[in-house]
Amino acid sequence: MAKRVGKSIIYDKKIVITHYAAQVGKTEGEGPLKDEFDKIYEDSYLGESSWELGESKLLENTVNCLLAKAKMVIKDIDCIFSGDLLSQCISSSFAFRDKCVPVVGLYGACSTMALSLINGCNFLEAGSGSNAVCATVSHFCSSERQFRFPLQYGSIRTPTSQRTVTGSGASLLKCDCDGIKIYASKIGEIVDFGIKDSNNMGASMAPAACRTICEFMSDLNMEPSDFDCIVTGDLGIVGSELLCELAQKEYSVDISSVHRDCGKMIYYIKEQDVHSGGSGCGCSASVLNSYFLKRLENGELKRIMFVATGALLSPTTVKQQQTIPCIAHAVILEGLK
Amino acid sequence: MAKRVGKSIIYDKKIVITHYAAQVGKTEGEGPLKDEFDKIYEDSYLGESSWELGESKLLENTVNCLLAKAKMVIKDIDCIFSGDLLSQCISSSFAFRDKCVPVVGLYGACSTMALSLINGCNFLEAGSGSNAVCATVSHFCSSERQFRFPLQYGSIRTPTSQRTVTGSGASLLKCDCDGIKIYASKIGEIVDFGIKDSNNMGASMAPAACRTICEFMSDLNMEPSDFDCIVTGDLGIVGSELLCELAQKEYSVDISSVHRDCGKMIYYIKEQDVHSGGSGCGCSASVLNSYFLKRLENGELKRIMFVATGALLSPTTVKQQQTIPCIAHAVILEGLK
Repeated sequence: MAKRVGKSIIYDKKIVITHYAAQVGKTEGEGPLKDEFDKIYEDSYLGESSWELGESKLLENTVNCLLAKAKMVIKDIDCIFSGDLLSQCISSSFAFRDKCVPVVGLYGACSTMALSLINGCNFLEAGSGSNAVCATVSHFCSSERQFRFPLQYGSIRTPTSQRTVTGSGASLLKCDCDGIKIYASKIGEIVDFGIKDSNNMGASMAPAACRTICEFMSDLNMEPSDFDCIVTGDLGIVGSELLCELAQKEYSVDISSVHRDCGKMIYYIKEQDVHSGGSGCGCSASVLNSYFLKRLENGELKRIMFVATGALLSPTTVKQQQTIPCIAHAVILEGLK
Repeated sequence: MAKRVGKSIIYDKKIVITHYAAQVGKTEGEGPLKDEFDKIYEDSYLGESSWELGESKLLENTVNCLLAKAKMVIKDIDCIFSGDLLSQCISSSFAFRDKCVPVVGLYGACSTMALSLINGCNFLEAGSGSNAVCATVSHFCSSERQFRFPLQYGSIRTPTSQRTVTGSGASLLKCDCDGIKIYASKIGEIVDFGIKDSNNMGASMAPAACRTICEFMSDLNMEPSDFDCIVTGDLGIVGSELLCELAQKEYSVDISSVHRDCGKMIYYIKEQDVHSGGSGCGCSASVLNSYFLKRLENGELKRIMFVATGALLSPTTVKQQQTIPCIAHAVILEGLK
């Protein structure tokens, strides 16, 4: 049985990620991590008739790629934990329709990859199944249309804005076999610092990330030097700087030497003109399920904290001039060697 | 540790609902269940500046009512499992911001009440916490604006359409104490029968409900007579009739004598002119957390199957003329006496 320490959870079973997959779009495939991904799509529609269906296809293909690596078919899966950014999480629902597999729909905005891993762990630790797929996806074109402006408008973006990653990541969880161990997790709290600028999501999310990271370490009596990296999902340049400042100021913890951010890693930020960096639930999902899990597998990394952050706004709350509540969910992952 | 039988889950721990609360809007408070609810709001805004914020307030108030019954404060809660119908689940995110409590965001459309109970059970069975609040909400006015037309248009509705319930329900889960036992659960599969009419959600959801109900009974070697009721969430008149027909035709199971539907129960359907009945995640949540849990508590009911159904469409998929994928999650609840 898992052990609750403060508000954090240490798993009793050896829950591991045995396989993982990540697929991305063209722009992400031109960034510094291009050789890490399983597949890069040139066509933003993935052959579908809309970007929304393309996004759903990207998730479906990524999960199929994962299953192929694990030599499994989808009916072997005990439960899929998935969610996405589109209203009513349609990418996930359409990707897994008529697959004869139980599906738990999640909503955590860009924090979904960590949220899905945590709920997958609870499912396995409970004994409710013997495996689980945890996955998510986002798409630049469908997100722009939904949250900002149709791309055809050619709107100019602010310097603090981030580019939604076209990408998907999926992990296969099992118990008691070889793989990257999920040692502990922390379910996030919703933090609202009163920021209203939906073009500055990094700044909105930094306080939530700070609380989760610092309280997770405090619960487990750990410190930054216990980790090879503390990896945030998509704070970008602005949010990453703020996170390190806040951690120092609020908790007297210096995480700057071990902090990495998937949103900063996935693009050549200046050359690719992506302003403050990448965002979207596909950002942390695709970078975790390629770059980081590979390095935990080959021994280059021993232990990381993966903290996916989500800005829980909607087009409606932006129009109604509401502030942006944010959340950050985290897991501690330990390598094979 | 829980036991997996087929694709169903039987819990090992005694996981119980110790307290529950349900609050609704004016129209629901004029229906046949008016004396069952904890509070009826005359003001559709609940004193807020928008229906969306009013919906969020309804959820927050319902959870506060639950906590007051349990003599707890929100910081005593180990995790809240919640979701709603609004895009990006803003009712839930806004209701629980800055409460210093871990939150798992879920998306299951109108199936959310069962989905939240199941994930709460996994959380407790895993030992990840010692209590959990499972909750959801929906609101007629915000749903109409989002999914159909602004109310001000005064649009005429089709006879198969359903009225989104303004209502919220919340359950408190604990282990090993007195309460209504959650014996088993079944996470739903996404079923798409090719129906495209978003004004006929009952018909879209009936096949998903049918599969979950019949396969759940088959997994556990049970039959309709083992239940006092098999309660669906919001199939309404059209969907309920279809469900009983489908169960007979596809699985040779006659559930007609024990079938109840919250969408049919919550309104005087003809007198209140609500077409095919109630819908929305607040429909099943408010009826479960009042009428049914009261009767399981006082011994009038011994065992029920609660099956909440969700139509996983979005305004975008409707405009893009896609079919409606549906899901149904179920739990078996056993009374105190």
